[in-house]
Amino acid sequence: MMDTRDPQTKGAGRIVISVDAMGGDRGPAAVVAGIAASADKNPDIGFILHGDEQVLAPLIARRRGLSERCELRHAPRVVQMHEKPSHVMRHGEGTSMWSAIEAVRNKEATVAVSCGNTGALMALSMVRLRRLPGVNRPAIACLWPSRNPHGFNVMLDVGADIRADAEDLLQYALMGAAYARNGLALVRPRVGLLNVGTEEHKGRPELRVAGEMIAAAAEAGGYEYVGYVEGVDIPGARCDVIVTDGYTGNIALKTGEGTARLISSLLREAFQKTPMSRFAALLALPSLKRLQKRIDPRRVNGGVFLGLNGTVVKSHGSADATGVSAAVKLAFKLAQSGFQDRLAARVASAVQSGQDAALSEQRNGGAA
Amino acid sequence: MMDTRDPQTKGAGRIVISVDAMGGDRGPAAVVAGIAASADKNPDIGFILHGDEQVLAPLIARRRGLSERCELRHAPRVVQMHEKPSHVMRHGEGTSMWSAIEAVRNKEATVAVSCGNTGALMALSMVRLRRLPGVNRPAIACLWPSRNPHGFNVMLDVGADIRADAEDLLQYALMGAAYARNGLALVRPRVGLLNVGTEEHKGRPELRVAGEMIAAAAEAGGYEYVGYVEGVDIPGARCDVIVTDGYTGNIALKTGEGTARLISSLLREAFQKTPMSRFAALLALPSLKRLQKRIDPRRVNGGVFLGLNGTVVKSHGSADATGVSAAVKLAFKLAQSGFQDRLAARVASAVQSGQDAALSEQRNGGAA
Repeated sequence: MMDTRDPQTKGAGRIVISVDAMGGDRGPAAVVAGIAASADKNPDIGFILHGDEQVLAPLIARRRGLSERCELRHAPRVVQMHEKPSHVMRHGEGTSMWSAIEAVRNKEATVAVSCGNTGALMALSMVRLRRLPGVNRPAIACLWPSRNPHGFNVMLDVGADIRADAEDLLQYALMGAAYARNGLALVRPRVGLLNVGTEEHKGRPELRVAGEMIAAAAEAGGYEYVGYVEGVDIPGARCDVIVTDGYTGNIALKTGEGTARLISSLLREAFQKTPMSRFAALLALPSLKRLQKRIDPRRVNGGVFLGLNGTVVKSHGSADATGVSAAVKLAFKLAQSGFQDRLAARVASAVQSGQDAALSEQRNGGAA
Repeated sequence: MMDTRDPQTKGAGRIVISVDAMGGDRGPAAVVAGIAASADKNPDIGFILHGDEQVLAPLIARRRGLSERCELRHAPRVVQMHEKPSHVMRHGEGTSMWSAIEAVRNKEATVAVSCGNTGALMALSMVRLRRLPGVNRPAIACLWPSRNPHGFNVMLDVGADIRADAEDLLQYALMGAAYARNGLALVRPRVGLLNVGTEEHKGRPELRVAGEMIAAAAEAGGYEYVGYVEGVDIPGARCDVIVTDGYTGNIALKTGEGTARLISSLLREAFQKTPMSRFAALLALPSLKRLQKRIDPRRVNGGVFLGLNGTVVKSHGSADATGVSAAVKLAFKLAQSGFQDRLAARVASAVQSGQDAALSEQRNGGAA
């Protein structure tokens, strides 16, 4: 399996993305259509595609020019959506998901992309890529449409782990800031800690400790700490990175999705009510499409697994070609910016300095 | 202070609502305008209004017919928005908020309404009304626009307490179901427990215990238990009552509000982009207004404090006359249905049977 070619140079400076072609709800055709769209738009991208050769080879051959940009790697098995992460972790060898991660582990590709089972993908990534030195719990970061000029905020963790102590939250702040720097091109991202109020005395005790640690590590982490933020700030402009535990983050993410979907469907109903409103809808179509594009979850497709020795992008299970292409674009952007190495360096230095600062404050009686 | 009149008979079968006229962001004029609107629409409603007599008397006199329906009770002090609950709890006597709660305590009014400081209102309510027998932690329940035919779901706790153990969550289920029965006129509300996935093995261990207790108390509580629900189900149609701890519930509530606000403002921008889209917006105005009305937070104004010996409705601090009138309508509906007594009876019987069932399951090794 070991490949000594440098992926950066493969095919004239191309960045190679490892893609799990199986396991999404729409099957391999949607994945191949997505990478073909990305290949068309971006000449600097190359692929290693993992899955059933017999299915994939004809799909690739049908897309002009794709076969030269895409290495096919046969994997006979597929991780199913309902399989338990613990089972996949033990018996996952031979699946397209395992193979896709393996290419990152072997440094043949910089980032892996999969539309498969999230829990299984995280479990396999943990076991094969291992955690970055200094990281206790990896996290999943998502992009959230916001009022900020760059259009999105980063939130993490949105579901890698239901627990997080103060030290984990500090690491999330460091990783989220690194992601915002490289994924959203922000020089000095503003980090907020999610709580039920912005006053200092609010919330759980571990949040106060986390807040002090995140504040202490701001300089080394290259971010600005804005203090506590609330649910309204997730799509707001008070900060760029929202730090929380995976239980709360997952519920916030899905509440936001549900609210957006409810409003969309009520909007559709409102416009279908009368002949006049249907006519208005026709005229308003370009405006509505612009809005839809702005908040289309397919265009911000991709939770990023942070805190591992390698970057993994989890695409929505129901992603179509547009969604897969968005996830590949995100993977490319992170690979191109050298995100993984920068993240590792930041975490190593800042975790240390943050812990030192918090410790010395504790010794001086400054913190609980 | 003790008043022996039966509020139900005061002014020919009127239901009396106790209203804190001070403490909202828009001042007493908005509150008086709100109760005047309610009085106009509903002949069966009467008020005890609490606050500065010199300010309130002329405001009431200006509204035709209001003075006969509204008893004015002077309270010289006002609880400020920034005051700490613990401070107000000790030094709150003489404030309009204290006085408004006192009227419920003395059974002069059935429900109290306030636009003031939430934390202070909860603290004073706890101290003056005391908890219902069988309730450890009171909760704040909110109504959330949803896909259900009745248009709203109930979610609790949305911020009374940041902690909740399994027994508290059971009590929230009982109280939320009673609220949905009386506030939304549902015969047998469907209750869901908020989690990060619907599979049984997901989430924190205390949620599994809570789920078993809520299932066991379903019969006595008069609800159907649908199991775990996710963030997308809060505005969805899978259940009518969403049970969660106050930390998660508060963050979900504010995330939903923030998302709705972001979409509204993006929608406005989209329609202002071109002359054509501005023309379309003009034609679409009735449709958009219908939608706005459906999700207007002022029309579902009022978190309800549950689990006390008396019902308290917390209106938004920024409520205008429409918002205050909506909170009064909700208070009236709950008072009219005899909600408080029904809730007390349900909690007393169901908490007992739920605990018995859970205990006997534990004894039989059926539960962790």
